[in-house]
Amino acid sequence: MKFNTRLKNSIRKKNSLVCVGLDSRYDFLPEFVKKNSSVSQAILEFNKLIIEQTHDMAAAYKMNVAFYAGFGVEGLKGLELTNQYIKSNVSDSILLADCKRSEMGESVLMVKQEIFDWLQFDCVMCTPWFGQDTVAEYVKDEAKGVCIYVHDSNPSAPDFQGVLLKNGLYLYEYVAQQVSQIWNKNDNIFIEVGATYPKVLNKVRKIVGEDMVMLTAGIGPQGGKIADLKNIRGKSKQRLLVNSSRGIIFAGERTATKKEYCQSVRSAAIELQQQLNGL
Amino acid sequence: MKFNTRLKNSIRKKNSLVCVGLDSRYDFLPEFVKKNSSVSQAILEFNKLIIEQTHDMAAAYKMNVAFYAGFGVEGLKGLELTNQYIKSNVSDSILLADCKRSEMGESVLMVKQEIFDWLQFDCVMCTPWFGQDTVAEYVKDEAKGVCIYVHDSNPSAPDFQGVLLKNGLYLYEYVAQQVSQIWNKNDNIFIEVGATYPKVLNKVRKIVGEDMVMLTAGIGPQGGKIADLKNIRGKSKQRLLVNSSRGIIFAGERTATKKEYCQSVRSAAIELQQQLNGL
Repeated sequence: MKFNTRLKNSIRKKNSLVCVGLDSRYDFLPEFVKKNSSVSQAILEFNKLIIEQTHDMAAAYKMNVAFYAGFGVEGLKGLELTNQYIKSNVSDSILLADCKRSEMGESVLMVKQEIFDWLQFDCVMCTPWFGQDTVAEYVKDEAKGVCIYVHDSNPSAPDFQGVLLKNGLYLYEYVAQQVSQIWNKNDNIFIEVGATYPKVLNKVRKIVGEDMVMLTAGIGPQGGKIADLKNIRGKSKQRLLVNSSRGIIFAGERTATKKEYCQSVRSAAIELQQQLNGL
Repeated sequence: MKFNTRLKNSIRKKNSLVCVGLDSRYDFLPEFVKKNSSVSQAILEFNKLIIEQTHDMAAAYKMNVAFYAGFGVEGLKGLELTNQYIKSNVSDSILLADCKRSEMGESVLMVKQEIFDWLQFDCVMCTPWFGQDTVAEYVKDEAKGVCIYVHDSNPSAPDFQGVLLKNGLYLYEYVAQQVSQIWNKNDNIFIEVGATYPKVLNKVRKIVGEDMVMLTAGIGPQGGKIADLKNIRGKSKQRLLVNSSRGIIFAGERTATKKEYCQSVRSAAIELQQQLNGL
């Protein structure tokens, strides 16, 4: 099945636009998972807990690989074990590698080995900086996905993404156009746009059309508002993924019991799902 | 010492513009290092051999992290052991992490832990895609370096790097201007420009001035010509680093003896050093 079809099916089947950001940095994990555990085991235990509480409403899981690599071999083993667990136990889950791996030439093959073979992700996320060479190899396998960062949620995102081109478009508009009209021949590419720039969200939706899934991040503490997402949900109001990381995975107190922590995580995920569906 | 001072001193002391690309992908290593060795030990042994043959003329070593991560935990252990070896035995070597780690916010701190603390690199290489937020945290430590990919050597590099802006500049020119005039306040940023676009090399040299080090790649098999580098060497003809990966590290035959392999590597590095100094 083509990756984009699988992604849309997941949103529809789970009736949810929620993407859970498994940015499980070890030093922020609750105390009960860290007791008597190695770093990799604690990460695995924590992620299993989050997955158990959220998989029925997580249209996808997004892991920023940096939050694992920041803890060395043990952190990456925790990620490897997590993805193995998901593939064996909740195999309908879609795993997005938020890794900014933008390569070209021979090194693209290495990223395939890292992200798809070793870590078992379903989708690699890339900046468009090096042009189409970055994605040409990945997109050959229509079952694997590629997500392109088009315009991000951080304060300096417009430094270059927002420059005005001679052709009258802003750079992010031109990228959205190229990606959706030229790069996405195998229907396995989708795009990311930060929620903190509502005008950008709306412009990009118009460019990529109603059927392409858009992933957005930056709601809550970063300043993005759920209300601003109302008109960019696309076809059947089901072409949007809204990532929440800390708001869900760290919804509990670090000193909470396991039971309390599970309840906080589940409540946070349900609340986001309902807010998005109720728009 | 500021990173850029250290880099310039290294070029001057070694009288060399050579940057050795330690892109030591395991499946390409010669047979004699693979015999009876684990993946990580074979990588370490191979890299030690390359370093022994080249450290007197390697103004820097650049490792594309993907060539290690492509072989999982064992590959990354090979990289970790290599950098430990260098720090203990050839501590004047400068280690560049060609890792395209372009993050923002909290995840930048994670990249610091991965690249500087765990893997002991001296410099992180980033795309400018997310704007100044990506480098703001790194540049606080003036002893650590940041290298920005301004215009690359691959065929699709101009897709976005080469778009014309309303202000009359090409995007790569605007990036070079912002990075050299605004981002580089602590004198620890330098830039990368591909050798396959000679006009771009010359334009960027004019923008960043004669004193900023430029790293270039893509000579030889990729089509870049050494002759095109003559006029972009900058101040004292010592503000250029020319990366060669396969041309040096895989200069020997895979079936060669260790002695033969060492000679091939050393000859290739000396030849490049002399060609560049003789321009």
